[in-house]
Amino acid sequence: MTSVTAVNASPVSGIDGPAVAMIGGGQLARMTAQAAIGLGVPLRVLVEETYGSAAQVVRDPLVGDHRRLDDLRRAVEGCAVVTFDHEHVPTEHLRALEAEGHVCRPGSRALVYAQDKAAMRVRLGQLWPPSPRHAVVSDAREVDDFVAAGRGRAVVLKTIRGGYDGKGVWTVASGADAEPVLADAQRAGQSLLVEERVDIARELSALVVRSPSGQVAAYPVVQSVQRNGICIEVIAPAPGLDAGLAVEAQQLAMRIAGELDVVGVLAVELFETPNGRLLVNELAMRPHNTGHWSIDGAVTSQFENHLRAVLDLPLGDPRARERWTVTVNVLGGSVGSLYNGYPHVLARDPALRMHMYGKGVRPGRKVGHVTAYGDDLDDVLRRTRHAAGWFAGEVEE
Amino acid sequence: MTSVTAVNASPVSGIDGPAVAMIGGGQLARMTAQAAIGLGVPLRVLVEETYGSAAQVVRDPLVGDHRRLDDLRRAVEGCAVVTFDHEHVPTEHLRALEAEGHVCRPGSRALVYAQDKAAMRVRLGQLWPPSPRHAVVSDAREVDDFVAAGRGRAVVLKTIRGGYDGKGVWTVASGADAEPVLADAQRAGQSLLVEERVDIARELSALVVRSPSGQVAAYPVVQSVQRNGICIEVIAPAPGLDAGLAVEAQQLAMRIAGELDVVGVLAVELFETPNGRLLVNELAMRPHNTGHWSIDGAVTSQFENHLRAVLDLPLGDPRARERWTVTVNVLGGSVGSLYNGYPHVLARDPALRMHMYGKGVRPGRKVGHVTAYGDDLDDVLRRTRHAAGWFAGEVEE
Repeated sequence: MTSVTAVNASPVSGIDGPAVAMIGGGQLARMTAQAAIGLGVPLRVLVEETYGSAAQVVRDPLVGDHRRLDDLRRAVEGCAVVTFDHEHVPTEHLRALEAEGHVCRPGSRALVYAQDKAAMRVRLGQLWPPSPRHAVVSDAREVDDFVAAGRGRAVVLKTIRGGYDGKGVWTVASGADAEPVLADAQRAGQSLLVEERVDIARELSALVVRSPSGQVAAYPVVQSVQRNGICIEVIAPAPGLDAGLAVEAQQLAMRIAGELDVVGVLAVELFETPNGRLLVNELAMRPHNTGHWSIDGAVTSQFENHLRAVLDLPLGDPRARERWTVTVNVLGGSVGSLYNGYPHVLARDPALRMHMYGKGVRPGRKVGHVTAYGDDLDDVLRRTRHAAGWFAGEVEE
Repeated sequence: MTSVTAVNASPVSGIDGPAVAMIGGGQLARMTAQAAIGLGVPLRVLVEETYGSAAQVVRDPLVGDHRRLDDLRRAVEGCAVVTFDHEHVPTEHLRALEAEGHVCRPGSRALVYAQDKAAMRVRLGQLWPPSPRHAVVSDAREVDDFVAAGRGRAVVLKTIRGGYDGKGVWTVASGADAEPVLADAQRAGQSLLVEERVDIARELSALVVRSPSGQVAAYPVVQSVQRNGICIEVIAPAPGLDAGLAVEAQQLAMRIAGELDVVGVLAVELFETPNGRLLVNELAMRPHNTGHWSIDGAVTSQFENHLRAVLDLPLGDPRARERWTVTVNVLGGSVGSLYNGYPHVLARDPALRMHMYGKGVRPGRKVGHVTAYGDDLDDVLRRTRHAAGWFAGEVEE
């Protein structure tokens, strides 16, 4: 210990207890790293970029490609369990890791329903019949047939794999409208999913965490607001939600988690219809944007509970600590530097909780989120919307 | 991005905003790293051990020795500000860094009063006359004179620099008692501080955070309990503390912070005497054990506010979120593995907040802390004491 030494990447070592590998180095891995510090659990992260969001804040990140099996193998070496920041690891690679004895949580058999929207619709139809009408389509005629069966109303076209944050989702009125998307899909040898556009009162999310032993922690059902397909605002709990419907949503999420053998976070994104029914929109099997409020607003955050679940440790209390907690995403806008805005945003609201992702600003890109909590929902909404809007250059005071 | 690459230590890069260097890689740096993630502030840490507490959880830690100026220089390179996990950086090195243009917060002129207990007593005597009687001593005769002036009562002998967690503190009844300690000090060319043992009702801590602009956030005054000189338990706020005395303690800490030009956390450890007066015991100018409750129990933690202060950002709200928050330190005991105990401790109390430091267990060593909060102080005390006691092998249920 006589001079400064650069520390090279090396296997996780020197710590009592198992290490967790996380595939993907976005903000979900970054916030998982924060939770891992408290739990005393070593976290190894496979990152896309040398200085990406999570790569900035973990020891010895491995730069690699989640589509390459060898990169995955190096990332999981020496770790007791493998988990994920996103759904994009190819199913065949997950199966290969499992065949080699690595413990993937969630496992490949569960994860396929978060990866493949067509498979999700088929399986979910068996568990929870009320789904939007849907079909797998490959050409314009099939789209036209689907539109005609819905009395001519516009429909939603989705890539079956790989979409996120509004990418891979289009609204079309006819097969002709769908042609460019169909052509792209055909070139890639893929089909598309078409779904009816349902009338919705609002979007909800039921987030549960499940351990391999079957223990489940269900967070309060939240309301989420999307803009251009990106979640921009989450209110916990969902205001005015009927208690019976809230418990129904939580039980639905618990049932899906159990039936699909999900381990870790399962977020069930739901539509509440104008007549008070629930329809499943999407499934995610990883910490989810609709659970970020839990960092500041719940006894145990979704990130800590995800880690506890994949390690089969007892789950933490998911209760809300406050009457209302609101999270608003900070999206890149017209202002290039986030840091230069800190003096104003932090001075204006000393109780604001800020979570920045270490990402460069690009218009519409999620670069952070802000959370506030309190007894007055309007006040909490105003504070969080102001901070996020100001960072985006959309409000000026 | 075609294969897995080990990422070598390199300058903090790719992130909007200034980087902070922290000297020392213990649990305070580890918990500061957790706060830095949310703020989006890059943290560079000079660590003592390749896989020490903070080294496990930051990108590119630098292994080096805080007593070597060259190691310090490499650690602070490219960082906008330098701060500290401990008080052990030699004053002459701090001055050298400052002379080279590095911004140390706190600066060398403030930090000396946390480093040098004799200098602290002299300076504090000017600011806040009620101190324990004290003197600097070099031989047994001086100790005997001090004991005689106190009517023969035992006294407290302290190393002037370098003590912590009960190390460097002895109770002696005479000069003869003090001989071994005096001999060691003489060999090192050092004097010692002797102080009267004051009758105390309990120990309190007033923790404030101050920015270079002079903004101050004062946390609620807490009660701390020490065993063998190590802080083992903190109750926020101090139960039954007279409101006038609490504000007096906060104002005293604010005044000391201002007069000494402290930047970042200042913890003023206080004795409350049986007749309700306050005496200053020690000063610390870094995140402090008596502020760990703030991670789960305050709107803004001491770690986040320390970072905000050293960056001269507006400070966050220091208010307690709950009626009572209790933190109990987990000390190493007879049980070798902490992780093997998680299933019991976490299952027994799903609302317990656990903070582990990634340290090997040695008897009496601080290896983590647990926090609980709620309306019933007895319940919160029972829960935290149980968890810490069980990890130490001192309770069996």
